[in-house]
Amino acid sequence: MEFALIDRIRRRAASRDDVVLGIGDDAAILRMPPGCELVVTTDSLNVGVHFPRETRADDVGWKALAVNLSDLAAMGADPAWCTLSLTLPDADAAWVDAFLDGFLALAGSHAVALVGGDTTRGPLAVSVTAHGTLPCGSALRRDAARADDDIWVTGWLGDAAAALSQWRSGGECDAALRARLDRPTPRIGIGRDLRGVAHACIDVSDGLLADLGHVLRASGVGATLQADQLPVSPALGRQVDASRRLTQQLIGGDDYELCFSAPVAQRARIEAMGARHATPITRIGVVEASSGLRVLDAHGGPVISRASGWDHFADASA
Amino acid sequence: MEFALIDRIRRRAASRDDVVLGIGDDAAILRMPPGCELVVTTDSLNVGVHFPRETRADDVGWKALAVNLSDLAAMGADPAWCTLSLTLPDADAAWVDAFLDGFLALAGSHAVALVGGDTTRGPLAVSVTAHGTLPCGSALRRDAARADDDIWVTGWLGDAAAALSQWRSGGECDAALRARLDRPTPRIGIGRDLRGVAHACIDVSDGLLADLGHVLRASGVGATLQADQLPVSPALGRQVDASRRLTQQLIGGDDYELCFSAPVAQRARIEAMGARHATPITRIGVVEASSGLRVLDAHGGPVISRASGWDHFADASA
Repeated sequence: MEFALIDRIRRRAASRDDVVLGIGDDAAILRMPPGCELVVTTDSLNVGVHFPRETRADDVGWKALAVNLSDLAAMGADPAWCTLSLTLPDADAAWVDAFLDGFLALAGSHAVALVGGDTTRGPLAVSVTAHGTLPCGSALRRDAARADDDIWVTGWLGDAAAALSQWRSGGECDAALRARLDRPTPRIGIGRDLRGVAHACIDVSDGLLADLGHVLRASGVGATLQADQLPVSPALGRQVDASRRLTQQLIGGDDYELCFSAPVAQRARIEAMGARHATPITRIGVVEASSGLRVLDAHGGPVISRASGWDHFADASA
Repeated sequence: MEFALIDRIRRRAASRDDVVLGIGDDAAILRMPPGCELVVTTDSLNVGVHFPRETRADDVGWKALAVNLSDLAAMGADPAWCTLSLTLPDADAAWVDAFLDGFLALAGSHAVALVGGDTTRGPLAVSVTAHGTLPCGSALRRDAARADDDIWVTGWLGDAAAALSQWRSGGECDAALRARLDRPTPRIGIGRDLRGVAHACIDVSDGLLADLGHVLRASGVGATLQADQLPVSPALGRQVDASRRLTQQLIGGDDYELCFSAPVAQRARIEAMGARHATPITRIGVVEASSGLRVLDAHGGPVISRASGWDHFADASA
């Protein structure tokens, strides 16, 4: 099984000038640009846990790479190379071809070279390691938020959670929401432009409250969010009532948007960045010296206010 | 599950001076030594496929890293960092602790820093990506064997196959053979010393004939091996009759020894290397201009002679 599939993958994998040796030896050999640091992330998707069994193979391929590129985007890195570990119940060449359609479409759009990996037999699972580069010292870290920073988020929140909820309920799934769940857009260009502009940055994979919570704890600060400022996509606005929507926006995962903090002086630059990338970048709150994360409604009333931990809220609302 | 386990792993992971940012952000940030290329390999182990379900957790941890470090050794690379993607049926902290005992013992002995990864729920599987560095242009590639090179192999062949065979038959398993199956030794030091000495190199993971076959095809050459020169460990010599042993040595996998080609002029240097690393390095054959791989017995008779492909032999003998 392995060799035929690996040949299939190798034939379709594009290269780059900095790939000295790609798929086909014991390991890949890659050349780093001078003055740069290496950025590395690994994320896996397992069938039935991270995607429903009925998910199309090309969507699994896209998403497996997208969740990793999103991590690189959250560091401000330029993506470069990836490896793919693919576990399959059987050597289904048609499935692998479709998987590669999605995987390589996204790889190609960011000039990412697939340089290695393996295929093994077992329940469907995909593990990807993505590599990027960064000018030394320019990373967007979680621990760099400062009091009085604005808090921003790219794109829209809650779409993926709404799609998953529709899917699980067995009803008709809105195509626009479904596309946001199956084919998330890693915000690579915005992440790169945020170097030297943003302080802290994270990608929203586990839900806004959970992920922003990581930033606040790592930075030793707190924050207040304005619930009515959270960006709502047209599709989400059409589908879901306001209270359910807010829950999906605050605790729903899988959106892969960037949430970042930046000094007030950077507002004009960040707004121009949104226009340049044709992606809304929305100011949703402010970093504060006092710890904890507060969410206020349009009238300034508390939607939620907790010192730490969101498990109870999640249990109560999910 | 995820956060508690990741904290558990993070607390135990050692660092290195070149790790700018390890576990705990969206991605790791690493600093490459100047003048070096990056070497990357990914290999996965799935329960029931790559190791029996009864395998001890610490042995799974050791082996998951060892098979990747062996790939780095086969390139001649200095190992540096790794990421770990761990899929578990449940959040069993004791299992993870034992797994880390084995994984980190091997990592520590080669100063490899665990810098990232993820934990997910599903059938037991481990995917590791290992990173090393190499002075530019010094890699030991598969395609560099030349006619008249000697063919060498480190350590011993067939031990892992013999152990697996004993295990599967339900009999008593020889402890020394079993250790070779569960805790293979990546030949990092020898691989490093082979830079500038060897021509082509590969690690023996799929069996000597299969792996040497990769080298010969990539290099456009052939070879003749001397069956009676294949290194037999004392444990294997005690356990198995000569004809079964030869099969295990030729087509048994999982030994993770290095098989390499080198000019005749390097013999003394390679023998000294074996003494320095207290590991036998045995000359087992010669590279030839004519394609195909021939195996001769002590009297010069053909044990096997095929132009290409070993499937038939494997089927007939396994």
